[in-house]
Amino acid sequence: MSNKKLSNSLANFKMEVNPHFLAKAEQLQPQLYHTEVPATTAIDYALSATQGDYVATAQRPFSASEPLSQGSKLVLDFKDHCVGQLHFKVRSVGSPADAPLHLRIKLGERLCELGIDSASYTGKISSSWIQEEFLHVDVMPATITLPRRYAWRYVEFTVLDTSPKYQVVIEEVAATTVSSAPTNASSSLTTEQLNQASQVSGLSTEAISALDRVAIKTLAECMQSVFEDGPKRDRRLWIGDLRLEALANYYTFKQNDLVARCLYLFAGAAQNEQRVGANLFIQPQVQVDDTYLFDYALFFVSCLHDYFVATGDEATLKELYATAKKQIDICARRLDDSGLVADSDDWWCFIDWQDDLNKQASAQAIFIYALRQTLVLSTHLGLAEDKQYYEKLLARCITAAQTKLFATELGFFVSGTDKQISYASQAWMVLAHVMPVEQSRQLLKRLEQERRAGNSSIVSMVTPYMYHHYVEALFVTGLTHEAWSLVQEYWGAMIADGADCFYELFDPRNKQFSPYGSPIINSYCHAWSCTPTYFIRKYALSCNAQ
Amino acid sequence: MSNKKLSNSLANFKMEVNPHFLAKAEQLQPQLYHTEVPATTAIDYALSATQGDYVATAQRPFSASEPLSQGSKLVLDFKDHCVGQLHFKVRSVGSPADAPLHLRIKLGERLCELGIDSASYTGKISSSWIQEEFLHVDVMPATITLPRRYAWRYVEFTVLDTSPKYQVVIEEVAATTVSSAPTNASSSLTTEQLNQASQVSGLSTEAISALDRVAIKTLAECMQSVFEDGPKRDRRLWIGDLRLEALANYYTFKQNDLVARCLYLFAGAAQNEQRVGANLFIQPQVQVDDTYLFDYALFFVSCLHDYFVATGDEATLKELYATAKKQIDICARRLDDSGLVADSDDWWCFIDWQDDLNKQASAQAIFIYALRQTLVLSTHLGLAEDKQYYEKLLARCITAAQTKLFATELGFFVSGTDKQISYASQAWMVLAHVMPVEQSRQLLKRLEQERRAGNSSIVSMVTPYMYHHYVEALFVTGLTHEAWSLVQEYWGAMIADGADCFYELFDPRNKQFSPYGSPIINSYCHAWSCTPTYFIRKYALSCNAQ
Repeated sequence: MSNKKLSNSLANFKMEVNPHFLAKAEQLQPQLYHTEVPATTAIDYALSATQGDYVATAQRPFSASEPLSQGSKLVLDFKDHCVGQLHFKVRSVGSPADAPLHLRIKLGERLCELGIDSASYTGKISSSWIQEEFLHVDVMPATITLPRRYAWRYVEFTVLDTSPKYQVVIEEVAATTVSSAPTNASSSLTTEQLNQASQVSGLSTEAISALDRVAIKTLAECMQSVFEDGPKRDRRLWIGDLRLEALANYYTFKQNDLVARCLYLFAGAAQNEQRVGANLFIQPQVQVDDTYLFDYALFFVSCLHDYFVATGDEATLKELYATAKKQIDICARRLDDSGLVADSDDWWCFIDWQDDLNKQASAQAIFIYALRQTLVLSTHLGLAEDKQYYEKLLARCITAAQTKLFATELGFFVSGTDKQISYASQAWMVLAHVMPVEQSRQLLKRLEQERRAGNSSIVSMVTPYMYHHYVEALFVTGLTHEAWSLVQEYWGAMIADGADCFYELFDPRNKQFSPYGSPIINSYCHAWSCTPTYFIRKYALSCNAQ
Repeated sequence: MSNKKLSNSLANFKMEVNPHFLAKAEQLQPQLYHTEVPATTAIDYALSATQGDYVATAQRPFSASEPLSQGSKLVLDFKDHCVGQLHFKVRSVGSPADAPLHLRIKLGERLCELGIDSASYTGKISSSWIQEEFLHVDVMPATITLPRRYAWRYVEFTVLDTSPKYQVVIEEVAATTVSSAPTNASSSLTTEQLNQASQVSGLSTEAISALDRVAIKTLAECMQSVFEDGPKRDRRLWIGDLRLEALANYYTFKQNDLVARCLYLFAGAAQNEQRVGANLFIQPQVQVDDTYLFDYALFFVSCLHDYFVATGDEATLKELYATAKKQIDICARRLDDSGLVADSDDWWCFIDWQDDLNKQASAQAIFIYALRQTLVLSTHLGLAEDKQYYEKLLARCITAAQTKLFATELGFFVSGTDKQISYASQAWMVLAHVMPVEQSRQLLKRLEQERRAGNSSIVSMVTPYMYHHYVEALFVTGLTHEAWSLVQEYWGAMIADGADCFYELFDPRNKQFSPYGSPIINSYCHAWSCTPTYFIRKYALSCNAQ
């Protein structure tokens, strides 16, 4: 997720540090795994008029380039998504190199990032995320390791200049990838599991296999010293992404210490009054961002809850319970006497990258969702007073949701003064168990009908993150056929589009969609899209998340 | 000098290595001196319509920039020419930096290099010499040292992007300069010397002081691990530049081991048949270029001769005499039976960056010039046979020059089949002592008359390198008034133009002149322009070059 809207920088923002928590986080630093990935395929590419996108038009084995002179290009396909450093060798041929080599290097997760002129980008978020470097090489032969970390599948070298006296050969191009997901952990499904998942889901074993593989790859690429949101952009610990990554992790890599580390980081570098910020910067030192979001603060509770459920780590629960409780208590200030979350039109709550979305109902539901999880934790810790207090609060909030946000005549939850109906509001109310499950099931059945009929008056979902919650809602109400269909319809369409990892943003009807102004700035490997593996293992294989 | 014409890449070129000579050169590696130079002045600049050049329009003290956002610029004036590495600190202000910083850094010896769009350059030699870098900074605060060596007085930072949430402050900008000219060596002239030089030359003490200071600065900036031609471009050991740098060095820094090192390098990494190449590359290992030039090969003799005269180092003379002799013998193959150098229209001989120049007469003169120096060396070494042989050859060549190249009716030497008259031919014939000194003096008097009358039929000089030889010719014929006038008229005009160092190229009537297609690619600190200090100390102060 990216900070495109800035209105929720916390007033009088300051960081409240808990050195003990930060020390704990430091102790939980993950091991980083590195792999050498040589580039062995060179390609040509072009804009396809029929596909409206850049596509490879030829490919050939690569070990060393032809001699390249001014204007020559070398485009390499690493054949899979890489996160890490790029290194290569370059030597001159012809007369001795009597001038520096001037190289441009573009790296792209997708070919559009190579094909579209970076200078044409005038979008909303920083152009500095575009992976394009200009490099002078004074002495050759040279072994060059670009100092930054990139996320890419494709690399394009353009020789901007040599001199008329020499050309260059580029060779031994390789990635040194980095991830804290263990490279030796075999997370892929067995044939037996594939068959079982296929049977349960109604999807083909090929579809299950691809969904699982790409989801795990997406997760692994985002697992660095923290759970990042995207390795290309923003490369940062956002709590919304963390929550979904952690869920997928419990079923796959089981790097539970990394989740604990992230929890300690959020609690250790909080905002005013120990608010959990929407995201953290890790370098050069831990720093909480000044963005505060209602839903994201509450997801600290969810993350802690899910972590405890998955690990039974009571020591961590005890240490971090107060921080979780604090988030509920601060968010509760937003409730009116009836227990209804106050709405506003700034960026107070994220939910989805959908400009038209009213967030009130979703926020109400997320508050209830987190409150239920708080109760699980306080019950486990035997905190009777908390339990009693939060039970009362929960009842009030549920009643408010039922009486003030459910439009009986329409059969849907509505949000805001305009009584907006959205997929987000329905999905979150279902996940919050505001109604008995059968009522939720009927509601989602009606909603699915509208969705398939293409009812455009219902505010749509635009991110895999929101799709995740909608699919999860379908699963928890037993609408498993609808859930699996949508997983295949949505995430499966990315695979059909050639995705190596799942994208940050995906609109099957408009593949060039970007809320930022250009597809070249989108992230094509994004943590919050990694949950198909979670769906498969939880709902098709009934794996235990431990 | 730059390899703009390539026709003289030696056929079947190969390098002939003498490991003993290269080991000697390695032992003579100079100490490098580093100085910290902070930038303390920020400026604005603009294109001046009246001056036709970029000029500073405002200046103010600098220690840290204002907060800079997308599109902001910071232009710093180091107030003097620097060679070395640039370092600075950058930190973010505002919200935490949620995207990398994207910076463009341009470094210029002159403001035109900042003001003119680098992308507009389409000139003859490599655009890779343009000192422009693009840099992403992922983590701030950061202390950044650009890895390359640059030559500059001005630095322009342009913030290409931050994000809407933060700005950056750039501070502690400084150079770590590098030179093998000792920083503690006080080479500046005393008041007494200035007065004496002023009296002898007829120039003001201010003029003498400025000419000497800028010349010494130029030399120091070019003194690196070898005598380079220019620290911005080509940063290489060219023998034409070496010869003049060595002459100036004997009167100033007296780093005579550095001259010896360069001689051993040229002899140790020769071309086919032990030809001395026009230039050497030092990194990653010593490599002779494939360019062979008649005059430059002969200047190995001159460099050895001048070194021996300045140092009396007989051991080096004995080791390198054979290489010197070899250059004469190979060049002698170009003589016809009468002793006349054969002409050709490729890039066989440099002389000057003057496209129209016919090189035959100059080459004939340089052969004679080098032959006389060979005789000095063979006489000193007591090599009677050599002495006898070269004396005969010398006589034949002088006769050929006098009879075939001197046009009695015109009173000038002519060159080539078109009997071209040039300043170059006359200067070199005078320096070669082809005629008695009084005749030479009369010839130059006539030539000076034509020059002052603006006779455009005489092929002009375009580089300080050629001006040096013309001025030297005036001095050796006793035309000291004319010589000093020209020094002030030509090098003094660069100082009036604001030069911190003397330029590679200078046409007082066309300050934007570049043989390469743009003034931004010219070198504004170039070794072959450093000789005013040599003129002052030799001809006005009668210093001893030891």
